[in-house]
Amino acid sequence: MSTPALPPKGQATIRVVVDAMGGDHAPDCEVAGTLLAIEQLPENVEIVLVGGTSAITNKLGKSTSRRLHIVDAPDVVTMSDAPATIVKSRRESSLYVGVDLMVQGHADAFVSAGNTGAVMATATMMCGRIQGVSRPTIGSFFPTTSTRPTLVVDVGANVDSKPRYLFDYAVMGSEYYRHMMGSARPTVGLLNVGEEDTKGREVVREAYQLLKASELNFVGNVEGRDVLRGTVDVVVCDGFEGNIVLKFAESILPFLKHRFTEFAERGLLQRLAMGLFKPILKGALAGTDYQEYGGVPLLGINGVVIIGHGSSSAKAFANMIKRAVEVVEKDVNGSIRTALAGTASAKDAQ
Amino acid sequence: MSTPALPPKGQATIRVVVDAMGGDHAPDCEVAGTLLAIEQLPENVEIVLVGGTSAITNKLGKSTSRRLHIVDAPDVVTMSDAPATIVKSRRESSLYVGVDLMVQGHADAFVSAGNTGAVMATATMMCGRIQGVSRPTIGSFFPTTSTRPTLVVDVGANVDSKPRYLFDYAVMGSEYYRHMMGSARPTVGLLNVGEEDTKGREVVREAYQLLKASELNFVGNVEGRDVLRGTVDVVVCDGFEGNIVLKFAESILPFLKHRFTEFAERGLLQRLAMGLFKPILKGALAGTDYQEYGGVPLLGINGVVIIGHGSSSAKAFANMIKRAVEVVEKDVNGSIRTALAGTASAKDAQ
Repeated sequence: MSTPALPPKGQATIRVVVDAMGGDHAPDCEVAGTLLAIEQLPENVEIVLVGGTSAITNKLGKSTSRRLHIVDAPDVVTMSDAPATIVKSRRESSLYVGVDLMVQGHADAFVSAGNTGAVMATATMMCGRIQGVSRPTIGSFFPTTSTRPTLVVDVGANVDSKPRYLFDYAVMGSEYYRHMMGSARPTVGLLNVGEEDTKGREVVREAYQLLKASELNFVGNVEGRDVLRGTVDVVVCDGFEGNIVLKFAESILPFLKHRFTEFAERGLLQRLAMGLFKPILKGALAGTDYQEYGGVPLLGINGVVIIGHGSSSAKAFANMIKRAVEVVEKDVNGSIRTALAGTASAKDAQ
Repeated sequence: MSTPALPPKGQATIRVVVDAMGGDHAPDCEVAGTLLAIEQLPENVEIVLVGGTSAITNKLGKSTSRRLHIVDAPDVVTMSDAPATIVKSRRESSLYVGVDLMVQGHADAFVSAGNTGAVMATATMMCGRIQGVSRPTIGSFFPTTSTRPTLVVDVGANVDSKPRYLFDYAVMGSEYYRHMMGSARPTVGLLNVGEEDTKGREVVREAYQLLKASELNFVGNVEGRDVLRGTVDVVVCDGFEGNIVLKFAESILPFLKHRFTEFAERGLLQRLAMGLFKPILKGALAGTDYQEYGGVPLLGINGVVIIGHGSSSAKAFANMIKRAVEVVEKDVNGSIRTALAGTASAKDAQ
């Protein structure tokens, strides 16, 4: 890769790279979301759209900004690409070129709605892990009946996590939650099938002891029902069950919509009633549409990467970009580095 | 135990034992549910209430039926009892006495809303496993946007299942689904984090190969979102993630109720609107209240056991009793025995 045609980055500038070719509706929602973010974010934030230049400029039309840059990447990573192969064979892809801009210091963060596995693997390989991190992880916020959302971590980066990995997810999740939610000492629970410390798989029982001995605000085991209850701020689990719970949760809203549509189809009165009811439903369910949450962070790497749904809307992209800026500004990675250095002895004892 | 004071059971009679002391509101809902079931079920069904005789007769009041029997059991198993200890030290409990009635041939089925772990362990030890079953299991129906519910199995009987256990859950789940839903060849999916057969934990990948080689209607891996979509009839998983998904699912309705209540509290108009739309909501969400589903079966033992929620209502108890009668009438256990005998070679090859 030659150095791209980007102006030098000012000291106070935060530059976010957007993978313009990642999502299902690329580059439409990527470009529209970028324009939204430019409007809404302060002057020191710049955005770099990476992808097919002509597709991007076509979509941009007459929209322009000195805070908006385009870097060409002729190749596209698809859902069928094997995650581990991108760094070797797809160096002209928007994913590789975009992450490389960050690695080379031309940008501070990278946002993509592309192949999640490919983004994780590529970013981890190219950025490297933060010292002390056993496995980078991704966490996702869930709405709750409490006053704050719950962060479930890991939701799919790793299956078959060792106790130490689960411990690291807890540390990274706590730091992320602390900065994003402004909570001094987030509470941490371990996802299990019962409250007693003798419950569950051996790896989970071992992780329980690690967490108990740590300086984290660990409250013990939690169960599936505790996620939406908001019993704790951070729910720690292996990516196998985390991913299953996340995907199950994402299917609730479509399930409800289907049910209400069926009801409306029973007759004219029902249709009228549902028409009136729709705004209520929407208001009451605000915050439960995962697409509006603005993506999930890949925690534990030397870089800021936010991963969105393939079906992310323009609004979702704008939220992802805002989230990326927040993670950079609050130096979440610096906090993770410090927190894991502080707990190294607890881990070594294991 | 001496033989209880029960009249001899007629040949066409189906006799269901109800643990009158199991649930949170014992014996109120147990007794009320029994009376409901007596009213609704045919003449050949008899019910035996097992528990503190005076508490039961007090609650029965003047209600009586020749199809209703009472067997005294002065002791009660609580949530804090260790599951494995009941058969040794709690032989006067309604759980032990009730299961023993079935084992001795005085009854055909046992229904309880007590300590799930204790019911499973006690019934498994006292009844023994059906030949060929590696581990008894419990499955739970989930509502779907498809025309039929999905059975998830295992939902908490076993954690750390071996591939062979998962295979047996699939066989037992298929037989149960076939009889309960009248579906000739239920489709089976393996719960995983992706569709490819290389995804997930090693134990899941091994189970995939076992299922693929079997005569089951196996369609491959499914994900968390496929449960409510009803992509397959039977979803097979370890009890760890199955239990987490079940408890997560059970928390959806309380979550929605909380959201709608919050909405109603915003003002008088909102309260009026919610009052008008409550029936709509209820109608549209019918079938999503897990308490009305009538309990979950313990599959794989030489006996019929239906386990309900601690908070089961009278209606839930009546449904549990009906479910028990159905399982007896359709000889689900005989089908499981035959199906596992037929697949023994596939398992032995493993």
